[in-house]
Amino acid sequence: MSTLRFDETTSDWVVFAPSRRSRPHLEGQATTATAESPAQIQCPFCPGNEGLTPSEIYSVRDRSNAWLVRVVPNKYPALTIEDNPERQIDEHSFQRMGGCGAHEVIVESPDHISFLGNQSVEQIEVVLKTLQFRYQDLMRDRRFQTVVIFKNYGLAAGTSLAHPHWQLLATPVVPRWLRMKHFEATEYFDRTGRCLYCVMLARELAAGKRILAENEHYVALLPYAGRTPFETWLVPKLHQASFQIVPENRLRTLAQILKGVLLKLYNSLANPAFNLTIDDVARGDEDKDYFLWHMRIIPRLTTPAGFELGSGMSINTLLPEEGVHILNQS
Amino acid sequence: MSTLRFDETTSDWVVFAPSRRSRPHLEGQATTATAESPAQIQCPFCPGNEGLTPSEIYSVRDRSNAWLVRVVPNKYPALTIEDNPERQIDEHSFQRMGGCGAHEVIVESPDHISFLGNQSVEQIEVVLKTLQFRYQDLMRDRRFQTVVIFKNYGLAAGTSLAHPHWQLLATPVVPRWLRMKHFEATEYFDRTGRCLYCVMLARELAAGKRILAENEHYVALLPYAGRTPFETWLVPKLHQASFQIVPENRLRTLAQILKGVLLKLYNSLANPAFNLTIDDVARGDEDKDYFLWHMRIIPRLTTPAGFELGSGMSINTLLPEEGVHILNQS
Repeated sequence: MSTLRFDETTSDWVVFAPSRRSRPHLEGQATTATAESPAQIQCPFCPGNEGLTPSEIYSVRDRSNAWLVRVVPNKYPALTIEDNPERQIDEHSFQRMGGCGAHEVIVESPDHISFLGNQSVEQIEVVLKTLQFRYQDLMRDRRFQTVVIFKNYGLAAGTSLAHPHWQLLATPVVPRWLRMKHFEATEYFDRTGRCLYCVMLARELAAGKRILAENEHYVALLPYAGRTPFETWLVPKLHQASFQIVPENRLRTLAQILKGVLLKLYNSLANPAFNLTIDDVARGDEDKDYFLWHMRIIPRLTTPAGFELGSGMSINTLLPEEGVHILNQS
Repeated sequence: MSTLRFDETTSDWVVFAPSRRSRPHLEGQATTATAESPAQIQCPFCPGNEGLTPSEIYSVRDRSNAWLVRVVPNKYPALTIEDNPERQIDEHSFQRMGGCGAHEVIVESPDHISFLGNQSVEQIEVVLKTLQFRYQDLMRDRRFQTVVIFKNYGLAAGTSLAHPHWQLLATPVVPRWLRMKHFEATEYFDRTGRCLYCVMLARELAAGKRILAENEHYVALLPYAGRTPFETWLVPKLHQASFQIVPENRLRTLAQILKGVLLKLYNSLANPAFNLTIDDVARGDEDKDYFLWHMRIIPRLTTPAGFELGSGMSINTLLPEEGVHILNQS
């Protein structure tokens, strides 16, 4: 079982999950698996090896009943639904709570060596629909305050299994960093009556220098003050506080733009490791005016060092304008 | 020249320093240099190669006039004193400022392959005195708001030169993350009239389970809610808001405890990569009651992944109590 401990110096919670020490390590394997990779033989996410994962939560299947996307509990969960979010204060006034939450894995394809950008738009759409469905379903549990959706791709991005997958983590507290993003956007809304992200998007479109791609419903851009080289955001054009409420026809266009952006990164940067996250509101704010959900893709090309850890600030060696130029050459 | 750009979504500034792309890379070299390392031949921090660095800012020398510790400007500075901190707003309302600041390197020993924990207490004391002197000197420039002191050791900690060194970065803004730490401590002080860190230290000493080392003036501990395995803090026992005002006799005892802690990490974790930072107040708060400066040592044994980047929260697989136990076995 895991525990959350309260860090009074930052008002944030830290998840302690000792059982995750037992999970497999990709260390020493190739960053990207190949057909010959011995990992495939034992890969718990490959068809035929379903027995190696905990019981299936959900799957999307084709006409022959073979799964296209499969959702299972993380075998080494950071948080679990069985745990209790009750707070406890020890004799020395340190505060903790039970590791209550959920930690799911979304296997994005039966194919062990596929790259998401090389999947069909239809397959990516199925993945996004599944993420949205699981997000909605998890939020029915009123103990959960946020659902963090993310994907780790490649060793440098911290993945421990090569077979392409996403993860959802439902947390019993609102992470302090998300609180801060919400707070900044709320303050802006209180001052101006407008959504900070929508205003920034309009300004980015007017400036035109950092736009990587655009379709009917979305813009992909390298933000003005991006923290790392090639950090890319996918932002909806229409105000929408949460990924939970994206209508079905806009998941198709999201799949389209995501595929295009991932291919640009893949081709220009030689298949880089990356993390992908969805930044969203906390419980109850799904239809609010102050925040716009957005997807962040963060290629892992540099190592944050002492300055970043000591200050929280970032040193970025590449202007986003240059980044767009490089990505558009491919 | 570098630029700072304002990120409105977090109210933080991001440093854009394209010139740092030209700096050397340790990638592909051994994490720790050896006597045979070809890097040594061209190492700009080795005695005899002083001409490869920008002009010396300061040095401490022995009786034969050979330097023991040497301070030079970073050849690839993130921020420079020549730049101007003036704010500018472009036609699309994006805000930036000149990359005004200072970026110094403190070469901690003439020895290319030394490990700080293996240096004499006297040599470590000279390093700490030099860091303090440079910090005090940089703060005479009223454009600088904070000085971030850090050390990167090993490839996984983001170092680009193997010869042991520290860095100081004077920033023209207060980093948002430090502001937040100051804010939490200020709120606590306003509520209770006490320094949060002094109170936490007293509680950690009473609990006794996470104390790694202790001497007359300092405690080394693995904090209750540490974010990563073996994260270690060195905390002064006497309230002191800033490293700037540590009296000379307490730099000697700091050197002692630092040496001991580094050796424990070195021996127990097989010479791990780590970052070391000093968390401090911003300009003007050096004698305030709300904050206690402290040193954080963060071994780089794990890779932050999508959950960390998406939420700001951390998943730590090792309880600090277990960490202390492991470190004390060596």
